[in-house]
Amino acid sequence: MKEWERLTTVEEMEAATASLLENGKKVGADSWQQRVKNQTPHCGFGESGTCCRICSMGPCRITPKAPRGICGCDVHGIVARNYLRFTAGGAATHSDHGREICHTLYATREGGNYQVKDPEKLIRIAKEWGVETEGKDIYDLAHEVAEMALMEYGKPFGISRWLSRAPEHTRKLWHDAEVEPRAIDREVSQSLHMTHMGCSSLPEALIRQSMRAGLCDGWGGSMCGTEFSDVLFGTPKPVDTEANLGVMEKDMVNIIVHGHDPSLSEMVVFYAQDPEMIALAKEQGAKGINIAGVCCTSNEVAMRHGIPMAGNFLQQENVVLTGACEAIVVDVQCIFPALGPLSKCFHTKFITTSKIARMPDSEFIHFTAETAGEKAKAIVKMAVENFKNRKPELVNIPQIKQKATVGYSVEAIKKCLDGVTNSHVDELGTLKPLADAIKSGVLRGAVAMVGCNNPKVRPDYAHIELMKKLLANDIILVLSGCSAQAAAKAGLMDKAAAKYCGEGVRRVCELVDIPPVLHMGSCVDISRMMVLASDLANDWGCNISQLPLVGCAPEWMSEKAVSIGNYVVATGIDTFLGVDPYTKGSSEVTELLQGETGVKQWLEANYTVELDIDKLGDKMIERIEQKRAALGI
Amino acid sequence: MKEWERLTTVEEMEAATASLLENGKKVGADSWQQRVKNQTPHCGFGESGTCCRICSMGPCRITPKAPRGICGCDVHGIVARNYLRFTAGGAATHSDHGREICHTLYATREGGNYQVKDPEKLIRIAKEWGVETEGKDIYDLAHEVAEMALMEYGKPFGISRWLSRAPEHTRKLWHDAEVEPRAIDREVSQSLHMTHMGCSSLPEALIRQSMRAGLCDGWGGSMCGTEFSDVLFGTPKPVDTEANLGVMEKDMVNIIVHGHDPSLSEMVVFYAQDPEMIALAKEQGAKGINIAGVCCTSNEVAMRHGIPMAGNFLQQENVVLTGACEAIVVDVQCIFPALGPLSKCFHTKFITTSKIARMPDSEFIHFTAETAGEKAKAIVKMAVENFKNRKPELVNIPQIKQKATVGYSVEAIKKCLDGVTNSHVDELGTLKPLADAIKSGVLRGAVAMVGCNNPKVRPDYAHIELMKKLLANDIILVLSGCSAQAAAKAGLMDKAAAKYCGEGVRRVCELVDIPPVLHMGSCVDISRMMVLASDLANDWGCNISQLPLVGCAPEWMSEKAVSIGNYVVATGIDTFLGVDPYTKGSSEVTELLQGETGVKQWLEANYTVELDIDKLGDKMIERIEQKRAALGI
Repeated sequence: MKEWERLTTVEEMEAATASLLENGKKVGADSWQQRVKNQTPHCGFGESGTCCRICSMGPCRITPKAPRGICGCDVHGIVARNYLRFTAGGAATHSDHGREICHTLYATREGGNYQVKDPEKLIRIAKEWGVETEGKDIYDLAHEVAEMALMEYGKPFGISRWLSRAPEHTRKLWHDAEVEPRAIDREVSQSLHMTHMGCSSLPEALIRQSMRAGLCDGWGGSMCGTEFSDVLFGTPKPVDTEANLGVMEKDMVNIIVHGHDPSLSEMVVFYAQDPEMIALAKEQGAKGINIAGVCCTSNEVAMRHGIPMAGNFLQQENVVLTGACEAIVVDVQCIFPALGPLSKCFHTKFITTSKIARMPDSEFIHFTAETAGEKAKAIVKMAVENFKNRKPELVNIPQIKQKATVGYSVEAIKKCLDGVTNSHVDELGTLKPLADAIKSGVLRGAVAMVGCNNPKVRPDYAHIELMKKLLANDIILVLSGCSAQAAAKAGLMDKAAAKYCGEGVRRVCELVDIPPVLHMGSCVDISRMMVLASDLANDWGCNISQLPLVGCAPEWMSEKAVSIGNYVVATGIDTFLGVDPYTKGSSEVTELLQGETGVKQWLEANYTVELDIDKLGDKMIERIEQKRAALGI
Repeated sequence: MKEWERLTTVEEMEAATASLLENGKKVGADSWQQRVKNQTPHCGFGESGTCCRICSMGPCRITPKAPRGICGCDVHGIVARNYLRFTAGGAATHSDHGREICHTLYATREGGNYQVKDPEKLIRIAKEWGVETEGKDIYDLAHEVAEMALMEYGKPFGISRWLSRAPEHTRKLWHDAEVEPRAIDREVSQSLHMTHMGCSSLPEALIRQSMRAGLCDGWGGSMCGTEFSDVLFGTPKPVDTEANLGVMEKDMVNIIVHGHDPSLSEMVVFYAQDPEMIALAKEQGAKGINIAGVCCTSNEVAMRHGIPMAGNFLQQENVVLTGACEAIVVDVQCIFPALGPLSKCFHTKFITTSKIARMPDSEFIHFTAETAGEKAKAIVKMAVENFKNRKPELVNIPQIKQKATVGYSVEAIKKCLDGVTNSHVDELGTLKPLADAIKSGVLRGAVAMVGCNNPKVRPDYAHIELMKKLLANDIILVLSGCSAQAAAKAGLMDKAAAKYCGEGVRRVCELVDIPPVLHMGSCVDISRMMVLASDLANDWGCNISQLPLVGCAPEWMSEKAVSIGNYVVATGIDTFLGVDPYTKGSSEVTELLQGETGVKQWLEANYTVELDIDKLGDKMIERIEQKRAALGI
């Protein structure tokens, strides 16, 4: 591995992509770049949220000459209904992933496919939930807690258990605004009910439910996903890895794991290290087996095992285009159906594994907790045996990669901060040193940067440029999802990158021994950020909304991102978007989300949408400085 | 009330509507007729299901030049995803209504707002569910069963309890096709997850889940809604009523109840009979208080109390246009947001009551189980006090109405059939006499006709013309929803209408003393039809799919209708649609739903879509005759 010298630029990444697209042309491959051209311009009604096809009287489209749909719904109702449905799609998706994790926890057993790797965390959660832990077998406890967690999805009465982690002030806001989520699935179902033909058309009611549906994700399903993934697979702690396409190995069997649910990738990683499989790989003429990840599955295994990250969302086709990918193994979410036909242009096996995500032109190997071991081994074997089918003339692995240190769970961050805490004077295991660094002005504040890529934004450019700008302004970053991978690919997760930062960030990074941007995990792990914000507010002694902390999703594309945005805002954190949600068609909805009289009034935070990325950065810095000023720091 | 003389024609109904629209013009009222003009032509992408706005990279629209969305999803995946989402919207909506009923059951108490009106049915269901009933207080039992029912929405393990009502053969088909619904909300949430960006794009998987999501409605949420509404408000039995706008009374306070959940309308009906309220009405110069219904709330109170039916879905504006509507009180679903501005053109109070259905330009009186009595009384009072604001010059009540006998729950149908059973020879309480009538050919078969109105079809015309055609061909009809109201308005629910039928139907109607079309209730009550079909198959000794029985929704418009269609098909009943679902853009989805290799193969029934209503009727008759031939009868 080459020594870290400098940041990888977006231009270099683009050159790599261009060379891969040339590879694709040789075999007649389609690409998202081409499909974007085919699909542009987009429908203006859809983009502004003013098209309704909720019933079959339509579709209806709002124009000055047709100001209402057939049912009489006006543009504000239509836009708000679409927004709530978009949120519900995201909340359901994250939460159903979380549910699968709970089921996996329920399936753990001593010596089984899945085991409890972090019993301490399990016991901590059990105590938080009032479960007797003393003298209990850890697997009995796991099953008991798993069943309680599963009940969070459908309990007939009461609100989410996880809300008790939030500061009292936040909980009161939720209660008063009537956005406390009840059972997770109920909020999803009710969101669909509210948006059914002839139900709600009052924007305020729809936006309130959008917040609630978001909260059932971030403080419900996603939190289940994160917390129990930690119990099952270990709570992340700092680990070194690498990122970008150069992590693929020319002489090895390359298996790419892609998707979101670590239950699959953990097993594939395990069997890729199986001596029998490695021996088989060598028989096939390979030097070994190399696993790398794409998208959030990559974040999961990078955070826990240092598995290298081949790329983020818009690089998923690139890994196949290298001609060196023996298998791309996917679970759920954000998987291009394009991988089916694309893999047929190469020797790549495109392996789908979940009933939630069935795709044409894939080999389906149904993966369940019960059969996880044998199926994972079969998948690895299939990839290894496919090495011989590689066409050497098509192999083109761009030689770009960067070092990265990842694995910053809340627990890990506190542990790092303990290193700069005088244990004779101060309590260990708190965020007080971070609070102090911000109060003193060494750090001006923090940004949680998250979200996907979206062809509407130059890929990774917004992520990387914003990070550079914020770091130069002594604002520290916590990251997740494809944003984190953008940072890693650029080199910003290398501890040495601190030298590119403002003096404050640099000092903190050196003292605490961290990179300037902290990888907190996958997109469900934004729940970690909610815990971080809550703990920081408590340790600081202020409300979350007072902290010089904002959220940002500069290149988001999925429904999950809107659900996330809603729970981040609802938690009191101003959130900045670089891609327009489909809401610009309604002044009322825009006011409720971005103005002073909607979510801002109810929950003390709101959205800013700014498509000019440079201005987006300025606005975040300005907001952080306003928060500082209001705190008198 | 005038004597029944002849059927009311669609032309007469249209003339009444025309005269009301003239009334509207005087006050500058908007109308759906005008909005249809404004919204026509509809977007071809939307109508064919080929537009995708599930993520914010798009929207994408499929054309020959752009055969895939940006993610690479092809037209079949896009259409199938949209279809599953449409289904999920309907399943969630019905089921959330059912959930509210379960909560109402949970809130029952001796002497409370809500009480157990049919303890016998409650005990029957409790026994079905294995609950000990002996010596138990009826309210303790109600709460226990209500909690079990609520758990059906979110239980972590197992399949719907209600499935055990289906014949063994049907249950096996469901199991083998992997469409047995688990917790109701889980199927809804998982449907959203499967259709999230980068999850399922394989049409087969998406259509299977569409069936499952439908089943979680019909054999889950809707069945909860129906069964526990019966427990709460009484199981319907034959009762006389009237239908069409002429049920509104010129000299009385007219209160229109509209929506779906009987918890509200039952209370409003109760307080409209309150001597104090009637006295107040007289003080205001009215002769009394007249309650009438629109849409499925109307079906609910007509079935249980004989409350007249003012009209169905596309007549909801008409009731306000009469100028004689003091209040239109709504709960959830199928309520035109147009009623807000329209009511402002008249003296009408538009009163919304549910947090699920908030609308602009309405007065919101939040209705809950706890406050039901006082709120209902306040609503009635508000309507009564509004009588004085009526503008006599705007009063125009079309003098058309028909007599109808309604209230044919499965229990009631069996009771009617008992009347023609020789209790010395045959068991009482079965559907055997019906089976015998069909076997003998006196009846050729049966059609379950359901669904809404849709401006894409001449309102009520398809319902009424198809019914007349089927009855002439000795096919008996069971109806629900707006289809039932169309029949009632036309006069087909008058027992005397039997004389317009074929000889077989006429004989049966006279013998059993029933109208030729049987009103089985609201749209959630299509669950009654599933029980009817199951019991008929059991009593007959064949599979449901062998019965000469088909389903039909000639004028459907809502997501609920697609959810219903899916569970009817999944129950083994061929279903005929007169409005295209948004699926014609995909040959694969069309084949899965309408061909021989999809749902037909898995579940022994499929869809027929035929926009020519006359041909639709011919096709149903043909299918029924095919089924007879296959049975050798």
